[in-house]
Amino acid sequence: MAAPAKVPPPPLGLVAGAGPLPAMVAETVAAGGRVVAIAAVQGLADPALAGRPRHLGFSFGEVAPILRHFAEHGVREVVLVGQFHRPAWRDLKIDLGTLRALPLLFGYARGPDGGVISLVSRLFDGAGLKVVSVADVAPSLVAGEGRLGLRAAGAGDEADIARALRLLAATGAFDVGQAAVLHAGRVIAIEAAEGTDALLARVVELRQAGRFRAPRPAGVLVKGPKPGQALRDDMPVIGAATIAGAAAAGLSGIAVVAGGTLLAEGAATVAAADEAGLFLVGVRP
Amino acid sequence: MAAPAKVPPPPLGLVAGAGPLPAMVAETVAAGGRVVAIAAVQGLADPALAGRPRHLGFSFGEVAPILRHFAEHGVREVVLVGQFHRPAWRDLKIDLGTLRALPLLFGYARGPDGGVISLVSRLFDGAGLKVVSVADVAPSLVAGEGRLGLRAAGAGDEADIARALRLLAATGAFDVGQAAVLHAGRVIAIEAAEGTDALLARVVELRQAGRFRAPRPAGVLVKGPKPGQALRDDMPVIGAATIAGAAAAGLSGIAVVAGGTLLAEGAATVAAADEAGLFLVGVRP
Repeated sequence: MAAPAKVPPPPLGLVAGAGPLPAMVAETVAAGGRVVAIAAVQGLADPALAGRPRHLGFSFGEVAPILRHFAEHGVREVVLVGQFHRPAWRDLKIDLGTLRALPLLFGYARGPDGGVISLVSRLFDGAGLKVVSVADVAPSLVAGEGRLGLRAAGAGDEADIARALRLLAATGAFDVGQAAVLHAGRVIAIEAAEGTDALLARVVELRQAGRFRAPRPAGVLVKGPKPGQALRDDMPVIGAATIAGAAAAGLSGIAVVAGGTLLAEGAATVAAADEAGLFLVGVRP
Repeated sequence: MAAPAKVPPPPLGLVAGAGPLPAMVAETVAAGGRVVAIAAVQGLADPALAGRPRHLGFSFGEVAPILRHFAEHGVREVVLVGQFHRPAWRDLKIDLGTLRALPLLFGYARGPDGGVISLVSRLFDGAGLKVVSVADVAPSLVAGEGRLGLRAAGAGDEADIARALRLLAATGAFDVGQAAVLHAGRVIAIEAAEGTDALLARVVELRQAGRFRAPRPAGVLVKGPKPGQALRDDMPVIGAATIAGAAAAGLSGIAVVAGGTLLAEGAATVAAADEAGLFLVGVRP
């Protein structure tokens, strides 16, 4: 008897922000046989996405074209992928859908950084589209638990990881702090608006300035979602730049929250950590 | 009847680290009629201190010469002033007093940044010298409560200040975070090992990178001691560099914890804030 024909999942709408992750997710989902319709933020998303089928470019603030585009392709589920920098007001194109959303937009304008994504999510919810997470549609990109590469964290690293998770839980209440660098119990750097790449660049400077003196490699980068962060909207990501930054900072390794952090290039990110001599582990808070 | 002759307080031992504050404190205390004997960390303390009377230069790790110097001048109370960067081991000169303190030094070597100062304090305690705070000996340099300069904080600033104080209380449990920059509820930057000047330089970069877009002036720097920080050992300081940094970062003003923060140049720091158009207020957590 032949195996029952597998029903492919319905078309997926992918709203693409900046960075390499949207193309990676589109690739991964399409490779699994699912149709993907892309709505890419112009001037922000990877221009190479325009070469993919069912692509629409849009400007921040344009809502109606996206909903039309997704409806045309039978989309019922939407995933938001990539970085959505808070646009300047002058970059906003205001259409009718946006006008309807103005109360939300005014809320966003004074809100924290995650505001862009949760705003857009609420717009889709309101239009009857289900917003799902990258973990739902491309689980192979989500960090698992335990040792992910060749190297394991040492005992001192594990103590720093545990302390960092407590620190991030404390700062998370202030809608901040997806990442921190610790060594031997000392907090070297905490991320706020600057992002993880700039955080790691700062550790390089701290070493140069003699404010972080432990011989290389030493110190861990710990990264995870904010407590209560809606993973369907936004997940922290590490990738090639994170690995290179951590190596330049002379760290021992990286710990990410398992099930709550994306590896931007999946297995390639793990291989890059191995090659850089860094441990890469998934941990549970 | 003539007023009773005021008995001058006993000579004060001043251990001088880096920065302008040691000279400022020496000046202020001496102007009050009290004899000051200085022990300055060579290569770290302001070289101009060597021009003051009763000056001794010493290297990190040399304990006996300081105790002898202070004993010669009748010192019973000691104040530690300035920044004491964690020295590299190769910069340590080891003498007998240091050898006695080795268990403490080993503790220090893996400890947090405040370790240098609390180590030295414990050495003085052990030698029967009372360690006092800058607030005890030069109260005119300590920030008071309320509006310190010409400008007051606005309502939005006050909400940010309150939120920043809660954030610093949360991070303080991790021996970190004497300062943070917030705007409209959003945490822009948190200080860890980089220091306040680098924190403010980062805010300049965040504005340039479009990650902090509020029109100038906007945002507050909030600075205070860590919760439970022993003020006799170490107090946060703001001065000309802080004012210039906050102005360059386009902030609205600065809030410091009243009674727990030093104004490096006293009234001159307040005048600098006025001139830069910044509010400067002392607050209670």
